Amino acid sequence: MAEITLGTYIFERLKQIDVKTIFGVPGDFNLALLDHIYEVEGMRWAGNANELNAAYAADGYSRVKSMAALITTFGVGELSAVNGIAGSFAEHVGLLHIVGVPAISSQEKKLLLHHTLGNGDFGVFKRVFKNVSKSANFISDINEAQDMIDSAIREAFIYQRPIYLGLPTNLVEMNVDRTRLNTPIDLKPVPNPVEAEEEALQSILELISKAAKPVILVDACASRHFCQKEVDQLIDITNFPVFVTPMGKGGVDEQKPQFGGAYVGSLSNPDITEFVEKADLVISVGALLSDFNTGSFSYSHSKNIVEFHSDYTQIRSAVFQGVQMKALLQKLLPLVGKASKHITAQVPPKIAPPIEKAANEDLTQDWLWSNISKFLRAGDVVITETGTSAFGIVQSRFPTHVSGISQVLWGSIGFSVGATLGAVCATEELDPNRRVILFVGDGSLQLTVQEISTMARWNLKPYLFILNNDGYTIERLIHGEKASYNDIQPWDHLKLLDTFKAKNSESTRVSTIGELTKLFKDQDFNKPDKIRVIEVMLETMDAPISLVKQAEITAKTNAA
Amino acid sequence: MAEITLGTYIFERLKQIDVKTIFGVPGDFNLALLDHIYEVEGMRWAGNANELNAAYAADGYSRVKSMAALITTFGVGELSAVNGIAGSFAEHVGLLHIVGVPAISSQEKKLLLHHTLGNGDFGVFKRVFKNVSKSANFISDINEAQDMIDSAIREAFIYQRPIYLGLPTNLVEMNVDRTRLNTPIDLKPVPNPVEAEEEALQSILELISKAAKPVILVDACASRHFCQKEVDQLIDITNFPVFVTPMGKGGVDEQKPQFGGAYVGSLSNPDITEFVEKADLVISVGALLSDFNTGSFSYSHSKNIVEFHSDYTQIRSAVFQGVQMKALLQKLLPLVGKASKHITAQVPPKIAPPIEKAANEDLTQDWLWSNISKFLRAGDVVITETGTSAFGIVQSRFPTHVSGISQVLWGSIGFSVGATLGAVCATEELDPNRRVILFVGDGSLQLTVQEISTMARWNLKPYLFILNNDGYTIERLIHGEKASYNDIQPWDHLKLLDTFKAKNSESTRVSTIGELTKLFKDQDFNKPDKIRVIEVMLETMDAPISLVKQAEITAKTNAA
Repeated sequence: MAEITLGTYIFERLKQIDVKTIFGVPGDFNLALLDHIYEVEGMRWAGNANELNAAYAADGYSRVKSMAALITTFGVGELSAVNGIAGSFAEHVGLLHIVGVPAISSQEKKLLLHHTLGNGDFGVFKRVFKNVSKSANFISDINEAQDMIDSAIREAFIYQRPIYLGLPTNLVEMNVDRTRLNTPIDLKPVPNPVEAEEEALQSILELISKAAKPVILVDACASRHFCQKEVDQLIDITNFPVFVTPMGKGGVDEQKPQFGGAYVGSLSNPDITEFVEKADLVISVGALLSDFNTGSFSYSHSKNIVEFHSDYTQIRSAVFQGVQMKALLQKLLPLVGKASKHITAQVPPKIAPPIEKAANEDLTQDWLWSNISKFLRAGDVVITETGTSAFGIVQSRFPTHVSGISQVLWGSIGFSVGATLGAVCATEELDPNRRVILFVGDGSLQLTVQEISTMARWNLKPYLFILNNDGYTIERLIHGEKASYNDIQPWDHLKLLDTFKAKNSESTRVSTIGELTKLFKDQDFNKPDKIRVIEVMLETMDAPISLVKQAEITAKTNAA
Repeated sequence: MAEITLGTYIFERLKQIDVKTIFGVPGDFNLALLDHIYEVEGMRWAGNANELNAAYAADGYSRVKSMAALITTFGVGELSAVNGIAGSFAEHVGLLHIVGVPAISSQEKKLLLHHTLGNGDFGVFKRVFKNVSKSANFISDINEAQDMIDSAIREAFIYQRPIYLGLPTNLVEMNVDRTRLNTPIDLKPVPNPVEAEEEALQSILELISKAAKPVILVDACASRHFCQKEVDQLIDITNFPVFVTPMGKGGVDEQKPQFGGAYVGSLSNPDITEFVEKADLVISVGALLSDFNTGSFSYSHSKNIVEFHSDYTQIRSAVFQGVQMKALLQKLLPLVGKASKHITAQVPPKIAPPIEKAANEDLTQDWLWSNISKFLRAGDVVITETGTSAFGIVQSRFPTHVSGISQVLWGSIGFSVGATLGAVCATEELDPNRRVILFVGDGSLQLTVQEISTMARWNLKPYLFILNNDGYTIERLIHGEKASYNDIQPWDHLKLLDTFKAKNSESTRVSTIGELTKLFKDQDFNKPDKIRVIEVMLETMDAPISLVKQAEITAKTNAA
């Protein structure tokens, strides 16, 4: 039998599905495993500054490449990552989380090792992760190891959720069957139940054939579960107006004439709210209907709704368990043209043109988000933070082939900095000309700032726009506008890249419309050839109007 | 009935037990609660840079003041803190962790709120924390709220473990009985079972009366469970030689003639190993016998052992459940003089004098730890990190009234920076002349560096010694000496305080014996009147000998 160590096997498998950067922090229970990364050509160990940041980075990487891997060490390392993993679980992000755990012999003897709770319980952290992962298991038998690894990779990918796998230190160097690598891991989803799928399909076609004013509403899971192409075709074939949710931002081509903007229930632009809510059929793809994604549940659209989900389909009140959207959409596409051809083309609401202001005026949030598209171009990945930027970006109109990353449901501040590292590692592997552009507030930045150092380490070239509004503006809007708990220690942001010894860097501060406009037009600035910090000075209480309204509702809900 | 809001009640209760700084990060589910901190005079909201750091800070504060409080927000905030809380649980550190959770009405409706997993499960994070806390509960009825709060504070204090309490946003402003504040929370431990205590006492006296060469061994839980005074008296009355474990460092007066140094099993200085292992009775106080605390379980002392623990007593093989050490020691003290008066005074091993080297020689780990006591003085709190410093500090001899903080069992790198913030907040409240002195490696620093910003925010004055040895030296010793996964991005440490806009600061780099000696002797440097970074340049593979030996054993255990 041709042999390979289990350690190397894992990284060969990850490489086969194009996972080429591994995120995490070394710790004594995973060091032996890390040796094997270097045995697989083209693999990179990111070496994050801490584990939470590493988990965020894996999440960001997976949002670009559909899969990621994170390695932590037992107890201390893995627990630092749990918030990041929970975010990936909530928001359908596929990743494999390998935890280096003590040798099986140490576990059996219940040794009072460092990184344990001192009570001999080696299963406690795995139990923690069962709550926030698709599954959580330890490998305990070398003969089961390959099955477990292949299955973990497969499930993380097809379900787009984190999978936890504990790997005892003593198994890493053991040999397993190398020939297994000749057969790629089967990444095909389980097939849809035939009859249920057919019934759902006919119901959908019937609803469409009766509709006069249908709309398509695209949410996060459409792209998370690989349906961007199908959605694109659905729009082209039917010519139905299409809207995105905040989490769906970047999931469709916003330059299409059918694009009508972002629907956020009652917090949308009034003409969008009216248009969507007067539709007589809503075709919803990949919905994740959280408060911040729906204007606090203020949807009020037709009851004629078709919901395409990753693991079921719902048509009005009828639930078709196990009928997954991608396969169903593929069945629908050849038939939907005929069913929809009676429908007169509708003109979606007009997208407002960019706001114009004088060059010497101070920068404002509404100008920024309305004009940001002038800077964006095809291939860009735009990352926004839970704060003014995640709400503001919804007001922009993306050029074709611009992706958006934002953690709207889980909403962990600081996420965006780690996610930026992951995204820029991923785009570098796919196409180094693609740009990764972060918008993060000065408050959120403080939680995860050291991951900028990892970007410097790898000579990556993101744009880091730091929105300096002197503290937690999103929280001031919800509660405690003047309260000092919403203040932060001010930092000298222009010193960050030097402190982290970034070799090829540029740090700029902009305060006026003119200064930022000049940067956006500057050809050198537009080239992603160095790491850049751009500190954007903004008024403390300046915020996108949708955030102001959302904050009022949230404050009321919390007090109710 | 005189009334008070529940929010204010909580902080009045915390103030009564001298908890005056509250650690945490604001989030929309805790903002209303934070308002009430400012209603209680003398209370401070630290406003940490992130939640893991806040948990570490609460831990450090509690190690100085025996109790601390941490406030996080639902989901994202609390999960970021879980590693810190697990460390407090493992190492017996008392703290109250209050989590701002959604209003009861939102929970009942299972709203798909931000900061949830999107599955309507509001209990999932509480279940996570049950694994790493003494208890974890939500308050759900205002009529039970005061009982639950008082009980949580009591239990966190008397058991010295973290307690988790979820506080729904809508309860904060509700009124409760103010007069209850007139009765302080009962912090007396539950009494020992009378007969078991008496039996244990007689057994101990009998063992002592038969002993010829007894030793006392002081570990972490002695000080964690309030027995420092009792241990001090035990030494004075009996005149028995006393040793500390690595985790017990700082728990006894090391200037006493009875002090013999640190016992770490076979990793101790050979004369200490011999002395302890030839003793015919070991009186062990507050043992936490983890691998790093015992030279990987290489204890080989007499089977005549009395183990004083926080919740039981063991005499040879006999376990006396519920017989707690503090009360038992208090019963023992009046009787132990008579039982031990036959024992001839023993002279413990001689403590080696500080190593001398020429001023122009490069700094080394052995010189540093052997000479550090020249800089230390009464009242100092010395914090060391899991790395070269936690192992090195064991080689030092503390002046009287110097406390040590190190997370030897849990061993989460980065802990020491957060703990320093907590310790310096605590000492500032107790006596601003006390100094807090951190030794952290350049690798560990990167995980939690932003907490230096919180020190700057409060104009605190710690000494931050950054041991720059170019990466993770402790890990290089265990595995992968030259492996790039043990490298880190180098930082310009001397720029950190400016980047964080520390107002009153000093940053210095030292490379030679002479440079550091000069600093230690400098009267201005000795005054804790500003925040200081001292970058100490050290060879990459230079490490305390005990760490070198421990790393060899750990590598073998991991591969076994």
